[in-house]
Parts: sequence; structure tokens; C-alpha cells
Amino acid sequence: MPLVDLNGTLGESFGAWQKGMDEAMLRIVSSASVACGMHAGDPLVMQTTVASARRVGACIGAEIGYPDLQGYGQRDLSMTPYEIYVYSLYQIGALTAICRANGVRLDYVKPHGALYRRGFQELAVAKSIARAIRDTDKDVILVGPRGSVFEEAAAGNDIPFVSEVFADRGYREDGTLIPKGERGDVVSNPTVAAERMLRLLQENTVEGSEGKPLTIGVHGDSPNATKVAFAVKEALEANGFTMAGLRSLVYITNTLDKEESSA
Amino acid sequence: MPLVDLNGTLGESFGAWQKGMDEAMLRIVSSASVACGMHAGDPLVMQTTVASARRVGACIGAEIGYPDLQGYGQRDLSMTPYEIYVYSLYQIGALTAICRANGVRLDYVKPHGALYRRGFQELAVAKSIARAIRDTDKDVILVGPRGSVFEEAAAGNDIPFVSEVFADRGYREDGTLIPKGERGDVVSNPTVAAERMLRLLQENTVEGSEGKPLTIGVHGDSPNATKVAFAVKEALEANGFTMAGLRSLVYITNTLDKEESSA
Amino acid sequence: MPLVDLNGTLGESFGAWQKGMDEAMLRIVSSASVACGMHAGDPLVMQTTVASARRVGACIGAEIGYPDLQGYGQRDLSMTPYEIYVYSLYQIGALTAICRANGVRLDYVKPHGALYRRGFQELAVAKSIARAIRDTDKDVILVGPRGSVFEEAAAGNDIPFVSEVFADRGYREDGTLIPKGERGDVVSNPTVAAERMLRLLQENTVEGSEGKPLTIGVHGDSPNATKVAFAVKEALEANGFTMAGLRSLVYITNTLDKEESSA
Amino acid sequence: MPLVDLNGTLGESFGAWQKGMDEAMLRIVSSASVACGMHAGDPLVMQTTVASARRVGACIGAEIGYPDLQGYGQRDLSMTPYEIYVYSLYQIGALTAICRANGVRLDYVKPHGALYRRGFQELAVAKSIARAIRDTDKDVILVGPRGSVFEEAAAGNDIPFVSEVFADRGYREDGTLIPKGERGDVVSNPTVAAERMLRLLQENTVEGSEGKPLTIGVHGDSPNATKVAFAVKEALEANGFTMAGLRSLVYITNTLDKEESSA
Repeated sequence: MPLVDLNGTLGESFGAWQKGMDEAMLRIVSSASVACGMHAGDPLVMQTTVASARRVGACIGAEIGYPDLQGYGQRDLSMTPYEIYVYSLYQIGALTAICRANGVRLDYVKPHGALYRRGFQELAVAKSIARAIRDTDKDVILVGPRGSVFEEAAAGNDIPFVSEVFADRGYREDGTLIPKGERGDVVSNPTVAAERMLRLLQENTVEGSEGKPLTIGVHGDSPNATKVAFAVKEALEANGFTMAGLRSLVYITNTLDKEESSA
Repeated sequence: MPLVDLNGTLGESFGAWQKGMDEAMLRIVSSASVACGMHAGDPLVMQTTVASARRVGACIGAEIGYPDLQGYGQRDLSMTPYEIYVYSLYQIGALTAICRANGVRLDYVKPHGALYRRGFQELAVAKSIARAIRDTDKDVILVGPRGSVFEEAAAGNDIPFVSEVFADRGYREDGTLIPKGERGDVVSNPTVAAERMLRLLQENTVEGSEGKPLTIGVHGDSPNATKVAFAVKEALEANGFTMAGLRSLVYITNTLDKEESSA
Repeated sequence: MPLVDLNGTLGESFGAWQKGMDEAMLRIVSSASVACGMHAGDPLVMQTTVASARRVGACIGAEIGYPDLQGYGQRDLSMTPYEIYVYSLYQIGALTAICRANGVRLDYVKPHGALYRRGFQELAVAKSIARAIRDTDKDVILVGPRGSVFEEAAAGNDIPFVSEVFADRGYREDGTLIPKGERGDVVSNPTVAAERMLRLLQENTVEGSEGKPLTIGVHGDSPNATKVAFAVKEALEANGFTMAGLRSLVYITNTLDKEESSA
Repeated sequence: MPLVDLNGTLGESFGAWQKGMDEAMLRIVSSASVACGMHAGDPLVMQTTVASARRVGACIGAEIGYPDLQGYGQRDLSMTPYEIYVYSLYQIGALTAICRANGVRLDYVKPHGALYRRGFQELAVAKSIARAIRDTDKDVILVGPRGSVFEEAAAGNDIPFVSEVFADRGYREDGTLIPKGERGDVVSNPTVAAERMLRLLQENTVEGSEGKPLTIGVHGDSPNATKVAFAVKEALEANGFTMAGLRSLVYITNTLDKEESSA
């Protein structure tokens, strides 16, 4: 029973500005990455998104970003690791309270845009985010790009980690994202996306001690977002994978690890 | 042993802009009302202020306001009670996480500026804030103006309430603040402020079941803020009052209430 | 040759957030009301919208609003008339520079949302906006709701005025808009909208000294915005009206006035 | 009669947050660099500062910066040259309108903080700002750091250029500013600042065709800002220099150039 999570980047509307098709996405994904008002989203959108995610039983993550609404968190901003730590606390806390008011809990934290890319190699940045999690709730999972220093940062702060690949984005050989605007940056063909994800998962066994838990990300505002998400889900389920929210993924992986090591 | 709390409106700096003399105030007050980034303050300032408050052992409150930085939360903004509820969650959550990272807890919530004044009479607004507290942490105290509907809102949501009077502001007969810009709006003479507060407390016994817990507010950016705060503190202590953070105030009042009713 | 202007509320996207169908609307309207970054829009969107409006030869107006992006300028905000005057200068100036860089000029100024409604009856507010126009460029036209004090404010500041009715909004008997959320607030049926506008214009002759110049507004983000705009345009043209940008409207009306009075 | 300009970075207050001692500085400087609301300042502060500058007859410049109020425009932000061009138009236009309403004109434009430093070597950025000036008003002067590519950018766009040195900041050998936080970043001793400026000017004749017009900048929020500004002014005047606003500086230099070449 190999498990995999599908997370959608949601809650990115702002005030009167709609973005993404959150309700449709929530019928497909197992986890909802909710923007926290710095690069997208606002308190009201967060509240609506958490209530919707709760209704469908999706796990909830805080998608934290640079305080650059105008640039949608996609522009590099030279914040120091300490500033990033404090801004992470702020965003995590804001969403945690909204989760609590909805009777659910925050399951994970995931950086967004330029912060996601910066943390890929910059350990001090990855540590800032990991430490913000540890200092607020040690059970919250850190999600970061596969092959990045986020995993090391999580281990150093004794918090769970799940790596992520995007179904709708192209990758370079070194595992970093192809920047927006360059050739191959976006994968909008549902079939292609589904095949890539399937191949990836089949090459990287994800159960027990051999594999590590993985989440597949789909941006809610990508072209064909719901079609891509649906195709990926269908292909994986047709090939024996089971969708599970991020928290189940981590819980089961941990349990299997322990059983195996005690065997 | 009559108790009283002195709370300072702190953490109102923003980015490169300094406001108030927080360090000096924290040597005098027993509670720190910390702005949460909507009408003043920002994550870094919140972090610094909470760390300082912790060092001196002051109670910590979330001073929540309208999202109007330009207007310092002093302009009326026609947000609905529901919007106010959600924005309260957001601000309370953000500060709660920063408190937790500093190893302290959030003790109270207090509205700011135009929201404080609006909630004086508008029960739906007061309830929004009370409900936001209940939905995040029922032990957090609501602070609102004396004689306002905030008390009713707190009771209805089963959360503790402490009423407040400002040492540095003038009041009308009906208990509402004299608006900024009108004659008598600000009390900047330390002696006058101290005498007014002393008279008020002596007329309103604050111990046991006869009195209700009261906090005296001083705005950190008022003219003579530290002098006013110091004069008030000195006058009260010289007349047999003991300063206590908001949480102690509520705890002791509750304990005395119970003892009395069980006697 | 009765003339009438059709203006679309455009340039309301913000950063990564799309709003309205500006390109489609610009193939229909004769004037483009461009948001100036306070309640909607941003510098890049303003630049794109002005360039597009120039390409189709539409007149360009500054749609100025409260500094409340989160609330899309639809929430009441207790700014003073003086504050509104200065914020008007700022927004008018910003768009004027962008117009100039595109080789066109700013033709008119029109308040948005809560500011539009407030200025309907509050003369001091209407005067603030009119004075901001006079103090920057006396040839710029003020657009305000029909039957409002904006006309008086324009006359007092010796600037041209054109009154507006919205094709896609419902009106009360007193000429004020039916508030959003109330029954009849929005007119989304193109045929109904077109018939209402035609009847209005036929009852109010708009040529020469008998009538006053009128602009018909269509919100770019209304349901059926392009269909409503197109139906209105078609109905009017089929009944002998000619579409003309706001500046032509004012110029021709003034010319006819002078000819008549000198006759 | 060697001329030199002394410009103060002013108008950096924001809403309820005071910054700098503008009134005192305006009694000393000959030019006022006014923040335009992106990294500091707001419409009301701009209006007040322009009115004050007008009263004392100071030249007025637009200090334009990154849209990062929280970071005071001091953090690097990866805006593209095109984005910088459009944001420059916006800021220049906003201040131009406020100048016009006060019966004065905009004399110069000067980048701020991280944008100033970035433009030192990045020609595309310097050109974006120069082009924004050319596209709004070709008579407006571009001010940039001495020895930077701003001069080339100005020449390429056929607009006047004046180079600047800061009296209150330390420089590296290559002419770039010592970053904030590093040793020698700030010069707060008035005597030292005055001597450095005097030596600089005496080594670089600034009259006629031999020298190029220079402006000495003083940050309004530096420690000892007014003392530094006053000491510099006094030392220069005692050594035969005459203070002149930026526009006079450029006008006279140009005139002398022409006389010389026609001689």
C-alpha cells in the first residue's frame, strides 16, 4: 500500500481578486497549502479555505512567503534568515489560529515562490523556517523541495520532513525548478504530468524504510490545474498508490520505520 | 491588598519607524499591549517587544486593530462583524506564535483605536472579538473600555473580562473617550493623571466580589508617557495598591470570588 | 447627432491577480476609467491599460479611490476632505505621468466605490476631488453620479463636469445606487440594461444646450460586462446616438453652447 | 563663485510615524529629496514636505525607491528594469502633481537605498530611471552617485545629470557606499564630515567647464543630521563656496559651458 500525498496551492485569492479554483481542487487533493497573507491570501480567504479543506477532510498547510503581495512572493527579497524566522512565526501563527477556530489543526508548513527557491540551497534560510516550526509546534511537518537542504534543516530541528515535487513544473538536472519564463517551466499537459509523476514514484519506492514520504504539488492557478491534479491522481491510483494527507503519510511512514527497526 | 494592572500600549514601531519608548515603559508597566501589524507594529517589532516583556515578566496582550497602517487604526472602517472576527483570529494567532517561540503565553486581547471606540456600543463588534478569543484560547482575557458592551460580549462567550481606563485620555460623562483633537482629549500632566486614577480606584473598590478587575492603560506614544505611567504607579502604590499583571488580577479575583461564595 | 460616452472601469487587476476583461471591453467603450493603485490596479497594470486604451483611441480617466486594496475601495473609510484632496493629487499625478509616457493625456477623473457614494451628498468631499483636478490640470473633466453635488463642486472649481449613470447597476428613486448585496443592485441582463439606458437618454436630450453631457459606466468586472456594454452600445447606435470619448463630448457640448449663445 | 548644492533626504515620515527633522533640515539645505510613498513617505507627508520646501525656496526632488515600506527600501528586490521604469513613472508623477498643486515644479529625481546601490553598476536599471524622467519631463535632473553608470544613462536619454556624494556616509575606494552595518558606514561627526566634503570639493573644481555639478547629500534621519548639514554648509561657505539649489547649479553650469564654447 504505497502512499502518496497530492497537495494543492490554494487560498491565493486576495480581497476582491479571485485566483485558482479552490473548491474544484479540494475535491481532488489530499492536502491544502494555504497562503497566509504575505504573498497572497488574506484573513478572510484563509478562513474560507480552511473551512472548505476541513469539509473535505484535507490536511492543511501554511504556505509562507515573502511580504511582497505586488510580486506574488516570486521576486527575490534580501530578508535575513532572522527576519525570515520571525515572518514564518507570524504566518504560521495566523493560520494556526484560523485552523483552531475551525476545529482542525495545522499539519504542515511549506515555503512559497522565491523563498522556496532560496531555501533550496541556502541552509540558513531553511533552518529559519524549520526553527519557526519547532518553536511553535514540533509536530508540524516541513515540506520542501526534494533534494534540498530543507531536509537537513528539519532533521536538525527535530521536526518531520516531507519532500515535494511539482506535477505542473519542469525541473533541471540538479533538481531545481526551471525558472518561470524559461522553456519547459510549466507542465500543463495532464497526461505528461501524470506519466512523469508515476515514473518518479515507481523509481522511488515510498513505503517503509526504503522510501521517504513524498508529496506531489499542483499550483491551484496553473493552466489546467484541476485536470493535471485529476490525471495525476487517477494514474497513481490505477497503479496501486493510495492518496493520503500529509499527516497520515508521515504517521504511517514513522510507524513502519519503527516496526521494521524493532523487527 | 487591592490589586491593579498598568498596561502600556507598546510595540507600535514599524520597520524603520520608531514609536514610543518601549524599554522605558516596560520598567514601569505590569502588562504590555502589543500591536499586531495591522494598524501598527510588524513581525520583527512584535518579536522584540515580546522578548522584552518576557525579560521583565510583564503580561502580554494582543492589541488588535483595523488593517489601516496609514491611518494608524484611528479611522473608521466599515468592516463587518464577521470580517472583524476573522481579522481578530489572524492577529491573535500571529502574536500567539511569537509568544510561544519566546516561551511565554498570550494573556489578553485588547482592541485599538477606532475599533476600540466602535466596540464600545456596538455589541456585534464586541462579540466578534470575544468569539475570536473563545475560538482560539478561552483563557485569554478580553480587555475593553469600562462601561462598554465588551463585558457583555465576554460573558456571553465565557471568557474573562477586565475593564480599562486610560490614564492619559479624557472621558465624557457617558464613559466614552473624548475624541482626539477635541478639548481635553489628552491628559499629559503626570500629577493630574495620577490623582484621577487614584480617585477612580478609591471610589471603585477592586478587591474581592465588590470590585471588578481594572487595568489602567497608558499609550506608549503619549506626551510624557513614561512620566504619566510612573506617577500613576507611584501614587497607587503609595496608597496601598499593588501592581499585578492582568492574568494575576483575574486569577486572584476569581479565587476570591469562589472563596467568598463558598463561605 | 446626439453624442454619448460609454466608459468602462478597467485596469483593476493587481499584481498576479487578474480582474475584468480589459482588452475585450476596450473594443467597445469610448473611455477607459483606470484604477490608480489605491483600491485596485498597480503601476504595471496602469501602464498596460493606458497603452491599450491609447491603441484603440479611448479617452483615459483616473478612477481614484480610498487606500483600501483589501476592501477594493468599497468600505467606508473616515478620511477627511483634506486627506481625500491630497490622495486625489497623488493618484491623478501617478496616472498623468503614465499617460504622458504613452504620449496621451489624462482626460477625466472619477471617484470609485465608497468614495463615489460618499461624494454623492457630501459637498466637502466632492470639492476635495474637484480642487485636486483644478490644482493639477484645469482641463481634466470630473465625472460623478448624475444628480450629485459633484456638479456643484466642479462648477465652483471651474472645471468641466460630466454626469454618469451605470448601465449595470440599479438605482433608487433619489438617484443613489442600490447598495451591493441588496435586491436589484446589479443589472446583468444586457437587454434590460440597454433598454434602460436608451429610455434614459431619450428622456434626457443630450445635445446642445438642452442636454448635458452624459457618460454611461460599465464595470469591467460585472457579470456579462462585455455583453452589457455591447448591447448598450448597439441599442444606442441603432437609435441615432453616436459614441464619443468624454473629451469630445465636453468639447462639442461647449462649442454648441457657445454657438447658441452667440446666435 | 563655485557653487554646490546640499540636499537633504526628507519627507520620510509615514502616517503616525515621525522620521527625521524636516523643518530644521530645511533651514540648512538647498534641495529637498522627498520620498514618494513606496519605501517611505505617504501622500500627506509629501504634501507637507513640498509646502515646507516651497516656503524656504528649496529645490524639490523625487526620492524614488522599491515598493518595500517594511524594509524602508533598503532590501534588494529583484524587480526588472521595466518594472523599475514603470514604478519610477508612478512615483515621479505622484510628486509632480503635488508640486504643481503647491505652485512649484519638480526639479530632480534621485533613487533611494537598494535601488541607488543597484543602479551604481547596473546600466539597465540606471537607464530605466533616466527614461522615466525623459518620458515625463526632460528638464528634470537625474541625481546619482558620483562615478556611477547613472551619468551615462542620463546622457543617453538627453537629460541633465548631477552626481552626489553623501556627507554622512563612508565610501570604499571604488566609490561605492560602505554597506550599513559595516565599519565606517556612517559619518556622524560634523567636523569630520565637513572636512571631507571641503577636501573633495577643493580637489574637484566645480565651476565652469572644468568641474561638474555636484550635490552633497545628508540623510534626514542620520545621527546628528542637522549638525552635519550645518557644519558642511558653514565650512563650504567659509571657503568660498556658494550654496545653490540643484536647478540653479545645472542652469549656471550649462550657461558657463555655452559661453566658454562660444568664446
